[in-house]
Amino acid sequence: MKYPELLKLETLSSGEGEAHVRVVVGPEHLNLHGTAHGGFLYSLADEALALASKSRGTGAVVLNAHIDYFSVVREGEVLEATAREEHLGRRVATYRVDITRQGETVALFSGTVYRMNSRS
Amino acid sequence: MKYPELLKLETLSSGEGEAHVRVVVGPEHLNLHGTAHGGFLYSLADEALALASKSRGTGAVVLNAHIDYFSVVREGEVLEATAREEHLGRRVATYRVDITRQGETVALFSGTVYRMNSRS
Amino acid sequence: MKYPELLKLETLSSGEGEAHVRVVVGPEHLNLHGTAHGGFLYSLADEALALASKSRGTGAVVLNAHIDYFSVVREGEVLEATAREEHLGRRVATYRVDITRQGETVALFSGTVYRMNSRS
Amino acid sequence: MKYPELLKLETLSSGEGEAHVRVVVGPEHLNLHGTAHGGFLYSLADEALALASKSRGTGAVVLNAHIDYFSVVREGEVLEATAREEHLGRRVATYRVDITRQGETVALFSGTVYRMNSRS
Repeated sequence: MKYPELLKLETLSSGEGEAHVRVVVGPEHLNLHGTAHGGFLYSLADEALALASKSRGTGAVVLNAHIDYFSVVREGEVLEATAREEHLGRRVATYRVDITRQGETVALFSGTVYRMNSRS
Repeated sequence: MKYPELLKLETLSSGEGEAHVRVVVGPEHLNLHGTAHGGFLYSLADEALALASKSRGTGAVVLNAHIDYFSVVREGEVLEATAREEHLGRRVATYRVDITRQGETVALFSGTVYRMNSRS
Repeated sequence: MKYPELLKLETLSSGEGEAHVRVVVGPEHLNLHGTAHGGFLYSLADEALALASKSRGTGAVVLNAHIDYFSVVREGEVLEATAREEHLGRRVATYRVDITRQGETVALFSGTVYRMNSRS
Repeated sequence: MKYPELLKLETLSSGEGEAHVRVVVGPEHLNLHGTAHGGFLYSLADEALALASKSRGTGAVVLNAHIDYFSVVREGEVLEATAREEHLGRRVATYRVDITRQGETVALFSGTVYRMNSRS
């Protein structure tokens, strides 16, 4: 079992620099306050980033990422992470990932990858 | 089972705006490349942040966080996250978390929290 | 003379959580490589953020911000910064600012403000 | 006149992945509230980053950067930016810059550069 399965992340689609990942928030995703752990939300977004950048065909490694949390998320809620390409350069690329709950953005993620197999 | 247990994170200590969390990288922490998932590393740091900010006695909610990845991490390696306070303000506080492997920093995290119960 | 005038930033419009700022890149905006200084590009975006958040009527102070640089900018080019609200909460708000050159995004900025006069 | 001179930034020293830059806050560095503009503080830190990364001998371009603001800065105050290397990799490097006022950190900056002339 790999990390995406441990977290029960479900890939809906990926390709052309985009990706969609879905998850139902379970009890194992919560922190001590009974709300979704910040690391769980980040992991959902990071998985969407990985799929979106992988769809470009070159190996990519994440250099850094940033996340803003807007709303508290609770057990039973359904989240969807949507990754989109902000910039595709020769050596680096930047992706934005919206985490939404029924259309409302609950967290906003941005990550930059280094494209490994690009000729430089 | 809460999220820290799902990820097998082990709290070594926390208090006075600091926290230390330890984990042994297992197969369930890996991505498809067989290296530690970026979301797993972030989750380790975020848990250290949560414990460090909680040690200040006021409720706190993470507003945003940033992580830089320096090195690939593999199964069987032991990681320690060390959270330290960069700034403790009345309404917000910022923490730095170093993720180290035998003393080498493999990722660097910074997070800002809103202090809920502070009188404003 | 205040900082926006020192940098010759020109406010095109602001209101309803948005703002547009324009500048022509001059010799005094360049670094030693003869391209636009990263601090100048950030300042352009930060000014758009300030105007957008100010348009909400409460005093606001920037907590933190992040910028990704996509392209080199040269003297004589015309830049426009467009700030949009990603999230407007009771205590904090997040803005995205695109810096564009003839429609192409050359840098992407995100900033979070604390809303001073909001009742908490 | 280049951008560092426009802002009256004074390089104190640079070398071995470090740099120190100093400035006295003047009226032209202020925003409409009469305090130091966020873009001015960022520019000070970014210049220290540029000098620190340049000291490594390879050309470097900033990929992205993040800044946290801790305290309001006023006219007449003396600021010093100190850049230190957090990580020096083959292709990328990360620097931390503390902006201090008489020893107190008023803003904390982190930036990642791509090292242009490194053999890959």
